[in-house]
Amino acid sequence: MQINPVSLKNIAALINSKYIGNENHLITGINEIHRVKRGDLVFVDHPKYYDKALNSAASTIIINKEVDCPLGKALIIHSEPFTAFNELTKHFEPKKYSKENISPSAKLGKNVVIMPGCFIGNNVIIGDNSVLYPNVVVYDGCSIGKNVSIHANTTIGSDAFYFKKRDARFEPLNTCGTVIIEDDVMIGSNCTIDKGVTAVTKIGRGSILDNQVHIGHDVEIGEMCLFAAQVGIAGCCTIGKKVTMWGQVGISSGITIEDGATILAQSGLGENVKTGTTYFGTPAAPVKDKMRELFATKQLPQLINKLYDK
Amino acid sequence: MQINPVSLKNIAALINSKYIGNENHLITGINEIHRVKRGDLVFVDHPKYYDKALNSAASTIIINKEVDCPLGKALIIHSEPFTAFNELTKHFEPKKYSKENISPSAKLGKNVVIMPGCFIGNNVIIGDNSVLYPNVVVYDGCSIGKNVSIHANTTIGSDAFYFKKRDARFEPLNTCGTVIIEDDVMIGSNCTIDKGVTAVTKIGRGSILDNQVHIGHDVEIGEMCLFAAQVGIAGCCTIGKKVTMWGQVGISSGITIEDGATILAQSGLGENVKTGTTYFGTPAAPVKDKMRELFATKQLPQLINKLYDK
Amino acid sequence: MQINPVSLKNIAALINSKYIGNENHLITGINEIHRVKRGDLVFVDHPKYYDKALNSAASTIIINKEVDCPLGKALIIHSEPFTAFNELTKHFEPKKYSKENISPSAKLGKNVVIMPGCFIGNNVIIGDNSVLYPNVVVYDGCSIGKNVSIHANTTIGSDAFYFKKRDARFEPLNTCGTVIIEDDVMIGSNCTIDKGVTAVTKIGRGSILDNQVHIGHDVEIGEMCLFAAQVGIAGCCTIGKKVTMWGQVGISSGITIEDGATILAQSGLGENVKTGTTYFGTPAAPVKDKMRELFATKQLPQLINKLYDK
Repeated sequence: MQINPVSLKNIAALINSKYIGNENHLITGINEIHRVKRGDLVFVDHPKYYDKALNSAASTIIINKEVDCPLGKALIIHSEPFTAFNELTKHFEPKKYSKENISPSAKLGKNVVIMPGCFIGNNVIIGDNSVLYPNVVVYDGCSIGKNVSIHANTTIGSDAFYFKKRDARFEPLNTCGTVIIEDDVMIGSNCTIDKGVTAVTKIGRGSILDNQVHIGHDVEIGEMCLFAAQVGIAGCCTIGKKVTMWGQVGISSGITIEDGATILAQSGLGENVKTGTTYFGTPAAPVKDKMRELFATKQLPQLINKLYDK
Repeated sequence: MQINPVSLKNIAALINSKYIGNENHLITGINEIHRVKRGDLVFVDHPKYYDKALNSAASTIIINKEVDCPLGKALIIHSEPFTAFNELTKHFEPKKYSKENISPSAKLGKNVVIMPGCFIGNNVIIGDNSVLYPNVVVYDGCSIGKNVSIHANTTIGSDAFYFKKRDARFEPLNTCGTVIIEDDVMIGSNCTIDKGVTAVTKIGRGSILDNQVHIGHDVEIGEMCLFAAQVGIAGCCTIGKKVTMWGQVGISSGITIEDGATILAQSGLGENVKTGTTYFGTPAAPVKDKMRELFATKQLPQLINKLYDK
Repeated sequence: MQINPVSLKNIAALINSKYIGNENHLITGINEIHRVKRGDLVFVDHPKYYDKALNSAASTIIINKEVDCPLGKALIIHSEPFTAFNELTKHFEPKKYSKENISPSAKLGKNVVIMPGCFIGNNVIIGDNSVLYPNVVVYDGCSIGKNVSIHANTTIGSDAFYFKKRDARFEPLNTCGTVIIEDDVMIGSNCTIDKGVTAVTKIGRGSILDNQVHIGHDVEIGEMCLFAAQVGIAGCCTIGKKVTMWGQVGISSGITIEDGATILAQSGLGENVKTGTTYFGTPAAPVKDKMRELFATKQLPQLINKLYDK
């Protein structure tokens, strides 16, 4: 999320924290590590990830140990960076619960059709000629392009599934990102697309989602992808252009799938996929390998009989 | 879809096309090839399917090449039959977006209960004693029998997942079919049932769908089927009577499952199934074969150790 | 379900049945066999289950045969115990269909946020600081704790998937149980949680459900469980504390999973799982065994080539 620039001194004061760096050093955004850029504040709370955070594009790091501050950056020292980060995102973007079905702050283009029972949150943008069928829910701040259709009972912009396990509870990372749906996208009924945690979940131009598709937080989907019903994509995946997934495919978090790949039905994908390749199975493998395996497995009962009979 | 009879000359004029046949030849319906019958207009755009279309029950064929016209039939020549077909279905049944939660043109039987937040589209029919729980959406033209119950947030009649891939976009086949839900059907919450493309998606009398079940376009389901939660059935499948599917089963498009068959949980079915048989696995196979395979696979690590140790 | 105490004589009269036992013997609840306790009436209609029902905690048994009545209990003789049981639950708790979005009998705590399009049924209880996002549906009698968040288009309390197969139809067991969601639970969008048949479906304190999760009737989930998107849990399962399920997992009915277990993505679980163990695959097995199997299966094509070449 972008914020109005605020000084290191002032932002540290918001969370009662000590800081290392120039007090006038500016913070212009708040993002978690997957989507961080220059000017951003990020957090890190595990020594394993200290280097990654300190060397990332982020200019300011909330950290739970006093370490050397990289040149031109700043540190904020806090015993619970995760919690401190949540406090800051909530401070800069407090939750508002719109009481109207269509928020007065939503901006609707020409010829937009919003059918009965839809909810359009604060500051939502919907482009020309888009159609939202009944009972579609669009959370605050999401952006929908032109010529988009979204079928009934679909949810755009629910909270990310991103938690820190404490002894007695799961602490959620406060969801303050958004969803961007580009032009010409079609989304089926009863789909769910979560917001990015601090950044964006994106559905590329002309992509098609069938019914009951789930897209996790911070997923970025390229142009002209085609996902059949009940596909589920976990958080932080990057999907190229013209990728096809058949029904009930599941993709693990953080996976990258390059342009033109195909994932066959019911596959469970846990590794990255190169341009134009086809995967199948759970765990998914290149289809040629998998088919050879399936063919061999079919012969196995006979093979065993043969081996043990002799 | 049925239409008021229109002459070859007039229908060709609507899409600025040349025709072959008697100008007074009548078109009484418009259907895609899976569901075509006498009097219908169909389209074909690939030489591979020319014969199938020309020899189908259809009386009129939109085609992208001048071929010999079968006796008693008519041809309409158009460079893009898919697009032309869409223009015609949109002409004869233009999209209307009802602004009311319950369209005044809907016909509700005796003792029908429509709970808050439901959307009942234009020309929907609902039979006596049926109950629609909150936030159920029924698109225009769908038909629901007597004693039907549909649980909350279910969507009946969303668009078919049927697209032609163009270079720069997917062109959807305009959905102008319907859904027929027969008497005594029970449908769980958050299910999705798509309309037929031009014909009907049907749920047979007394069938039961658990929650989050997805039924694709043009699927026909017989009487007294039982589908557990999160089952997904792709388009154009034909399911007999008393078929049972356990949780999270997926069925590929165009599959036929005969009466009394059982598909075990999480199976992914890609072949036709005969009366009374039981299938399991991905890809699904007769359960006896599959169980033998699973049993053999469990022995495999030991077998390999044995073979390589010697 | 609990009822105001009623005598054996009076309850038998409601279903025109003969009874065996003291006419003043009291019935204080009605429950099906999985959740029966002292004072309850239960039913049994198959000789295979007679002993289980007669020896259960239930004090009164509707049965389709005159058998010896256990000491201190009572029998009601009826040719169709399933149907008789339904008649009684419907008598004591007739269906009411609220016409308001928020029933006047619902009890909402302090700072509860109910966003537009939600349905809150009769006698629903919602604890302090809970947030229901748009279009959430909560059926009659369900109970939601404090600090709970439920995302858009989720359904709490739909009917159980529990049927008796008759020749010409499925007869549903009348759902008259409830759902209890404890404090600090977070539920994603488009989830479905069914009521217990006569008892309770429970989500334990601090548990987290991602989007499109399905929880069947009478499932009891402990504290601090974490279920990823599109998980489906069939009826009557018992899940301990701190159990993790990754995406698209399916659990068969009646399974017990002990504390701290992990079920990996897309697994289909059909057996009980012990404390702290990890399962994978369909059918799911301990992950170590399964990984060995998968590794061996990958080698299989080569192995077969080797065996047949020699």
